Amino acid sequence: MRITVWNENVHETRGDEVVLGHYPDGIHAAIAAGLAGAFSGADDEIRTATLQDPEHGLTEAVLDATDVLLWWGHIAHDQVADEVVERVFQRVQAGMGLLVLHSGHYSKIFQKLLGSTASLLWRNDGERELVWTIDRTHPITEGVPDPIVIPRQEMYGEPFDIPAPDELIFISSFTGGEVFRSGVTYTRGAGRIFYFSPGDQEYPVYHQPEIQRVLANGVRWAAPRRPRANVTAIHKPDQGWFAS
Amino acid sequence: MRITVWNENVHETRGDEVVLGHYPDGIHAAIAAGLAGAFSGADDEIRTATLQDPEHGLTEAVLDATDVLLWWGHIAHDQVADEVVERVFQRVQAGMGLLVLHSGHYSKIFQKLLGSTASLLWRNDGERELVWTIDRTHPITEGVPDPIVIPRQEMYGEPFDIPAPDELIFISSFTGGEVFRSGVTYTRGAGRIFYFSPGDQEYPVYHQPEIQRVLANGVRWAAPRRPRANVTAIHKPDQGWFAS
Amino acid sequence: MRITVWNENVHETRGDEVVLGHYPDGIHAAIAAGLAGAFSGADDEIRTATLQDPEHGLTEAVLDATDVLLWWGHIAHDQVADEVVERVFQRVQAGMGLLVLHSGHYSKIFQKLLGSTASLLWRNDGERELVWTIDRTHPITEGVPDPIVIPRQEMYGEPFDIPAPDELIFISSFTGGEVFRSGVTYTRGAGRIFYFSPGDQEYPVYHQPEIQRVLANGVRWAAPRRPRANVTAIHKPDQGWFAS
Amino acid sequence: MRITVWNENVHETRGDEVVLGHYPDGIHAAIAAGLAGAFSGADDEIRTATLQDPEHGLTEAVLDATDVLLWWGHIAHDQVADEVVERVFQRVQAGMGLLVLHSGHYSKIFQKLLGSTASLLWRNDGERELVWTIDRTHPITEGVPDPIVIPRQEMYGEPFDIPAPDELIFISSFTGGEVFRSGVTYTRGAGRIFYFSPGDQEYPVYHQPEIQRVLANGVRWAAPRRPRANVTAIHKPDQGWFAS
Repeated sequence: MRITVWNENVHETRGDEVVLGHYPDGIHAAIAAGLAGAFSGADDEIRTATLQDPEHGLTEAVLDATDVLLWWGHIAHDQVADEVVERVFQRVQAGMGLLVLHSGHYSKIFQKLLGSTASLLWRNDGERELVWTIDRTHPITEGVPDPIVIPRQEMYGEPFDIPAPDELIFISSFTGGEVFRSGVTYTRGAGRIFYFSPGDQEYPVYHQPEIQRVLANGVRWAAPRRPRANVTAIHKPDQGWFAS
Repeated sequence: MRITVWNENVHETRGDEVVLGHYPDGIHAAIAAGLAGAFSGADDEIRTATLQDPEHGLTEAVLDATDVLLWWGHIAHDQVADEVVERVFQRVQAGMGLLVLHSGHYSKIFQKLLGSTASLLWRNDGERELVWTIDRTHPITEGVPDPIVIPRQEMYGEPFDIPAPDELIFISSFTGGEVFRSGVTYTRGAGRIFYFSPGDQEYPVYHQPEIQRVLANGVRWAAPRRPRANVTAIHKPDQGWFAS
Repeated sequence: MRITVWNENVHETRGDEVVLGHYPDGIHAAIAAGLAGAFSGADDEIRTATLQDPEHGLTEAVLDATDVLLWWGHIAHDQVADEVVERVFQRVQAGMGLLVLHSGHYSKIFQKLLGSTASLLWRNDGERELVWTIDRTHPITEGVPDPIVIPRQEMYGEPFDIPAPDELIFISSFTGGEVFRSGVTYTRGAGRIFYFSPGDQEYPVYHQPEIQRVLANGVRWAAPRRPRANVTAIHKPDQGWFAS
Repeated sequence: MRITVWNENVHETRGDEVVLGHYPDGIHAAIAAGLAGAFSGADDEIRTATLQDPEHGLTEAVLDATDVLLWWGHIAHDQVADEVVERVFQRVQAGMGLLVLHSGHYSKIFQKLLGSTASLLWRNDGERELVWTIDRTHPITEGVPDPIVIPRQEMYGEPFDIPAPDELIFISSFTGGEVFRSGVTYTRGAGRIFYFSPGDQEYPVYHQPEIQRVLANGVRWAAPRRPRANVTAIHKPDQGWFAS
């Protein structure tokens, strides 16, 4: 499995002390470290990329070598170049897996893949989030406690303006009583997409082993299945099919 | 619209004082009264039926005259005759709408239509339930406040052992932090089914106007659309189709 | 119901004799005429708009007065201004209904709403299309023969690169043996979208009463339901919710 | 993987010459042989069971040792004991995978799991069936040609009276122009169900390698994921949860 963890890395480069307190090497480094145990084989590779890198670190060469991309962004969505967004979009259509994390709901790439605003309600009071498993046969929920307890977290609540998901994996509640579809999947083209909301920059959520487990499960689930199939020329072997 | 409200009516006939305090004429009477405002036309008809009636009040004649059936049961599911369950099942297949309410999740008819146990978690501590709207374009949510606040209610929580619903209309949270898919729809044959969980016998939930609104919307949505279509004999007009 | 029928109107303005033979006043005029019987009330209004009009006829004022928009395009998708596409996109999110017709599968607006390429197989041999009803309880299929027989039509076949639809309404087959999900629905934001594939410019499909019936049903189904609901400030009446 | 192939085995025991011509050792033996290549590991086990065996060969002990059950039946559905149906039903709820084949659509177990009649159209004229892949990212379609061509087969057509499937994997067309959702999945409880229609007793369909590939993929997909998760006692550690 070849994994690339992308982070806008702006809270960190600005020197936000709360964020750096939890994630001294950046959120991307913590996410990557959390995956390391699950993907430690000879063929496994975990790299990181950030907004500040040339082409945001998402060159054609990097994407050629990426089976699954994880995306964390928050306050710099509009600084992501449209050209890079288009490149990632095309890769997803061709089969690359994509995990969109937390405030990445507002990223250009997620909005473009959904055709929706992905708006939601939020408030940050550091409340307890409970992440309940809904789809108990889904591989993303294997080995995950039910519920996951996140002691302090930003609240994300419905209405979450997303298309009806292919699969509803998790629903969260917060101390204030709000609910949120915190784990949902989509397919676009040959690519599988998993959105998972826990993971605010102000709380050490990505250090929780059960959150790391969800991400590892998600990476496995989103891995490309195969090259896109060709249609056999049944009807008119002399002409073949016209793929429009 | 011709509506039949069915209630097992066992808490009431046993003389349970808490239940009779909220529903002196029975839960069925309260549900029927709550629908009366929305269905007061010349062609509208609202009747009630209970377990104690001959054939539980669900004779062929009554079902002939029923567009949508509402089902409330709790402690007497096993006293419902299999013959009546089969009769209702066949009517749903043929297009009759069905609203299954609260503890009706464990009714024979709901289990038979779902092919599932419909088991769930519960505890009764009289906590606040918030009913959040998820499907904002759905007619069942028209005019419904978001969230509906039910001051005191029994908790129903995930895991709710149901098939992935056709539509997820509402999600509830409870003071204790549990979540529940409290409004879901299914289609079986030509019949539309809406399960809505708020409505315990110990709390006056069916007197809340917003709950009554959901039920009225649900009845309209579940109303039969048309006779089941015939398939035109295109391919072999001399032989017709064989409907197996 | 206030309906706007949009057509790129390029085959017609180029003077394509086959197309003008079927649709002397343009495809938009034929579609509008086909809807006239179903929407002839005092409050009904059917207008048309084309690529050649200022702002393609889709000004803010026109969209303000549009409940449901129908979209037909084929060879000039790239001539549709991005600004107009964005405007229509925002209207759909806000609740305007949208019917995308035939080769409109490749329109900018459909791709943008789906987040997919919407590519498909095609060949034009004037074969028979049979349009089979799959969702027999859906209002779009009311009064529609099963199957609809289209004597001569362009073939559209799977793989159709679309997200799993919310509802699968129709499946077509063609003489050559191909199949196609010819009627599918989606919701984006508060807007309902119905894609219906029959209707090539070279065949008089839009003159068939059963096709007109599907479009009329589709318009009724896609009509806006209501203003988007506000979330009541339950949790913190002093602060209200933060809608991000 | 521990696989049990069940066949009513009635055409065969009656001595039907056409069926025995294709399947001299019974349809179950051919299906089992077709799976042997894919499941030849030390931990793999493929057994068969038939209606004529004691308890139809589906004793508690056999089901204890079954990860995935395949079901073929046609003319003897009503001879399957309700007790055995109930036993299989409970196993599916607990996580056993189930593949329902061809005329098994009318089996008691399939109807019970779906809550539907599963009725369909049919005629047997030995026509060509084309099985088109719809869900191109699904593991059941890995390595499967698109379309699969079955030279001669019984026609199964819509309307197929099933609930909207969780996933639509294949759609078939027939020479006569009919279409059919020939591969669909469901989840019930912790169990995964795959219905696949190709495979009539009068044609040698189960000898086609691409059909065998679909069945092998289906078995892998339907394999049990894990024991059903327990819910952690978050809210009231002193009381625990009440699992109703």
